[in-house]
Amino acid sequence: MKAAHRYILTLTCPDRVGIVATVSELIASLNGWVTEANYHSDQDSGLFFMRNEIKADSIGDQIEAFKAGIRAIATNFNLHWALHDTAEKQRIVLFASKASHCLNDLLHRWHNGELDCTVSAVISNHESLRRMVEFYGIPFEYIPIIPDNKAAGFHQVAEALEQLQPDAVILARYMQVLPGSICEAYNGRMINIHHSFLPSFMGANPYQRAFERGVKLIGATSHYVTEDLDEGPIIEQDVSRVSHRHQTKDLIRLGKDIERVVLARAVRSHLERRVFISGNKTIVFD
Amino acid sequence: MKAAHRYILTLTCPDRVGIVATVSELIASLNGWVTEANYHSDQDSGLFFMRNEIKADSIGDQIEAFKAGIRAIATNFNLHWALHDTAEKQRIVLFASKASHCLNDLLHRWHNGELDCTVSAVISNHESLRRMVEFYGIPFEYIPIIPDNKAAGFHQVAEALEQLQPDAVILARYMQVLPGSICEAYNGRMINIHHSFLPSFMGANPYQRAFERGVKLIGATSHYVTEDLDEGPIIEQDVSRVSHRHQTKDLIRLGKDIERVVLARAVRSHLERRVFISGNKTIVFD
Amino acid sequence: MKAAHRYILTLTCPDRVGIVATVSELIASLNGWVTEANYHSDQDSGLFFMRNEIKADSIGDQIEAFKAGIRAIATNFNLHWALHDTAEKQRIVLFASKASHCLNDLLHRWHNGELDCTVSAVISNHESLRRMVEFYGIPFEYIPIIPDNKAAGFHQVAEALEQLQPDAVILARYMQVLPGSICEAYNGRMINIHHSFLPSFMGANPYQRAFERGVKLIGATSHYVTEDLDEGPIIEQDVSRVSHRHQTKDLIRLGKDIERVVLARAVRSHLERRVFISGNKTIVFD
Amino acid sequence: MKAAHRYILTLTCPDRVGIVATVSELIASLNGWVTEANYHSDQDSGLFFMRNEIKADSIGDQIEAFKAGIRAIATNFNLHWALHDTAEKQRIVLFASKASHCLNDLLHRWHNGELDCTVSAVISNHESLRRMVEFYGIPFEYIPIIPDNKAAGFHQVAEALEQLQPDAVILARYMQVLPGSICEAYNGRMINIHHSFLPSFMGANPYQRAFERGVKLIGATSHYVTEDLDEGPIIEQDVSRVSHRHQTKDLIRLGKDIERVVLARAVRSHLERRVFISGNKTIVFD
Repeated sequence: MKAAHRYILTLTCPDRVGIVATVSELIASLNGWVTEANYHSDQDSGLFFMRNEIKADSIGDQIEAFKAGIRAIATNFNLHWALHDTAEKQRIVLFASKASHCLNDLLHRWHNGELDCTVSAVISNHESLRRMVEFYGIPFEYIPIIPDNKAAGFHQVAEALEQLQPDAVILARYMQVLPGSICEAYNGRMINIHHSFLPSFMGANPYQRAFERGVKLIGATSHYVTEDLDEGPIIEQDVSRVSHRHQTKDLIRLGKDIERVVLARAVRSHLERRVFISGNKTIVFD
Repeated sequence: MKAAHRYILTLTCPDRVGIVATVSELIASLNGWVTEANYHSDQDSGLFFMRNEIKADSIGDQIEAFKAGIRAIATNFNLHWALHDTAEKQRIVLFASKASHCLNDLLHRWHNGELDCTVSAVISNHESLRRMVEFYGIPFEYIPIIPDNKAAGFHQVAEALEQLQPDAVILARYMQVLPGSICEAYNGRMINIHHSFLPSFMGANPYQRAFERGVKLIGATSHYVTEDLDEGPIIEQDVSRVSHRHQTKDLIRLGKDIERVVLARAVRSHLERRVFISGNKTIVFD
Repeated sequence: MKAAHRYILTLTCPDRVGIVATVSELIASLNGWVTEANYHSDQDSGLFFMRNEIKADSIGDQIEAFKAGIRAIATNFNLHWALHDTAEKQRIVLFASKASHCLNDLLHRWHNGELDCTVSAVISNHESLRRMVEFYGIPFEYIPIIPDNKAAGFHQVAEALEQLQPDAVILARYMQVLPGSICEAYNGRMINIHHSFLPSFMGANPYQRAFERGVKLIGATSHYVTEDLDEGPIIEQDVSRVSHRHQTKDLIRLGKDIERVVLARAVRSHLERRVFISGNKTIVFD
Repeated sequence: MKAAHRYILTLTCPDRVGIVATVSELIASLNGWVTEANYHSDQDSGLFFMRNEIKADSIGDQIEAFKAGIRAIATNFNLHWALHDTAEKQRIVLFASKASHCLNDLLHRWHNGELDCTVSAVISNHESLRRMVEFYGIPFEYIPIIPDNKAAGFHQVAEALEQLQPDAVILARYMQVLPGSICEAYNGRMINIHHSFLPSFMGANPYQRAFERGVKLIGATSHYVTEDLDEGPIIEQDVSRVSHRHQTKDLIRLGKDIERVVLARAVRSHLERRVFISGNKTIVFD
């Protein structure tokens, strides 16, 4: 059931005639077997987005020739590109607070091979989830965030990240607003789950406010973290039906089931290099 | 397939012990056969809501005794109540502009017996839908709303409503903000469809703004009209998945399918006396 | 956040005038505060179903009077009834095999207080999930089922259940067909999750068959176990969209997310006494 | 809002290295501007599917060179291909019986420009929908199907189709099983809507049977018609939640809303050349 060894080529460039032909010709010339190909021309930005999955053994020992070929094209077409080797596992760091539902879900999926990555550590501002994390054999770092001196805690967080050098950071209901410098450093690589259907109910206590407004559906949103709280590019959203019979505590309970899957889908898409950021929006090749 | 003749008793009162027993005892004493019963205790407001459907022929000629019985209880329990006779059709007036999807949908459902009411008239600020409305044998009133002098048009609208005396008014994508006096007059009896998942994207051009925000689901919301635009009690909402492949014009097209059903469900629930307003929220017994 | 102490009265009887009045009158006479009330008249069977949640402290020390009152009514109205005390936790036994997703989900919810019960044991025909179960402090019983001699294993299962005397049995992807005698013994108290949208794809390998049929949605179904495999009363179902891009292994992965929530919702509804069986169907008061 | 003039190139061939490069190179050599590109490698059949939308004015007067280029590639790669000109409207014939919901929906969408085609005629075995069809200015052909002599009616149907030569035939709740010869003649071009979530409840009275089985979701399925009733390749499906409160007549009513959109989505996808048939399954590029 293990996924085959593949290369994933992702690229962005100003849209113009010939880009698919040129890249496809390069891949074909190396006898590369494309198992999945996705393209998108964004009318607003005039940008072109492309993702190709190629069987590694079809390229064989010509990987350097492949890279050289892309570099040659890159100048011509003004490409931003990356070639990902699925044999090189991405390292992620998870942040959590006291709520366990998202963290338990991600760890369970990771343990079962649904998320192809290494979990370098779980960082939390509370001790409560240490046992669960250690059950999965993952280092747990307790870094308290004291209301009176958050800066000290965040300094420690920044140092831990400096040490861990993760490819991506996942905020699994961390409940703390990270300082701009950390958001900046992980721009496009830090994913949050917000417990509302954004842009409704940005900020604190979304379920309480959803209850007060009397909405008939509640939602959750996973997005890349930017300095503007809850305003980063949206990766995935989903909703669940509620009614007058549900109190705020029921919305919280029902919402957990949406938060879990919405975050997990976003993390999986990100790890599989399916998500491209275009301005404040995303392209997600599914 | 015609629905049987029924009485629908709806009531609201401060929640206290004995209300269900007292009302049920009254119905039983008249040999009333309850086909559907719904109750809700609202913890926030401390109010109790009740809806009972009773076969008309089980009550037979004791209908006055029934009303007298309820009146007797009403004082005691501080009831607001109404007894609806399904044989007396409610009269509704539909408002539309140029977009035909909601109007066509409601008229088709009405024609097929899905909406148990009389459509007294369709009022529109454009002539475009006259032929469709007259196909269904319904009077079409063209009342233009001139940007420079909206007051004149709205005065005519108010007079038309004064004449028609509808039980309910449905804004089927009317696209005009009615004056406060009309909203007031039809408080709790005027239903609008807003083409977004409220409270996201209140006001104008919601699909354009949803596109710009890059949401992954679009929605529609039916709500009672209040003086505060798009802030009235929500009756029904639904959503549809969209992606980076969809432009604003696609959101508009896909949104129509949600608007249609969300408005139709709200109208049907209202006509069947299933919707209760509690503050700025609704209880919908389904 | 702990739920208040309540009594849950559930009853079924031939539908006739006066039953709600009589029961409500009894509750009111004891000053019982009803927090949730549900009624259903089943037109097919002519049966009436009722569920009332009553605050325990409103009844106080009159609980015996309450029971006596119901007993008096029962004869008259031919009631089947039960009075559940939420202070008396139900005991459940979970069955699993190798797949961990449903079991992990149920144990996590139970641990977080979403499922109000005691988990007496997990029984499995494989050792694989022992560590996860023991992490939650729950006894794990390994009872192998040998293809050549299933009877021996099932005999052991029957003895274990005899010992444990659970109120309900949950098959969390157990993958074994239990003998009729065990199904019979837990009739209406044993819940299974089937990994298809029943009645489609009953029996083995539903995802493989869904893939071969080219369906555009896959589903999962939780139902009470009867002697007829996958034909018992359905409690809950849900679906997930798939496309030509998904192989059988993707359907299996995506299906897990549906199985999890569909089983969890069924178990929660059952534990809260919200599910009534009527012939081969269920009434679920939500 | 009118869609731009485009060419749509669709092709299928045995999967092998170089096909995308070769076709893309051809398009680029003519300066063709690809606005949408989709590819799929089917692991089961070993076939490759491709759809490209190209702005017509980017190709200009080189359309014959384009065709010649594809013909040259076709032999080499064993292509089945078609080049569709969106300026040439496809002609469709709709079949209906007494139920109006699907027909009204398709005609309304067509009238509003959502379905890019010409409706040549509506054929029905009942007169009931004549007025609705003629309102839209479409010829209505009444061809009765007499139980005692269905062959005579179907002979007339075959002759009408012979005359009309439609590109596609849509069965909008026609409720008659067409003879194999007609199914054969419109293989891959005749779309039906079945009022269940196939493969559940194939054949007659699916809502009644869904009610009897006590399912918690009902569905609808659009599929290409083959000689095996309700077993053709599925194009689209959707579902709606139901409960014990719904009788068969409610399932029929709620089901209409699903049938409408499921059929409309399938027709639109077919008209836009987004649907490819592979064995008994479909690839739908959305």
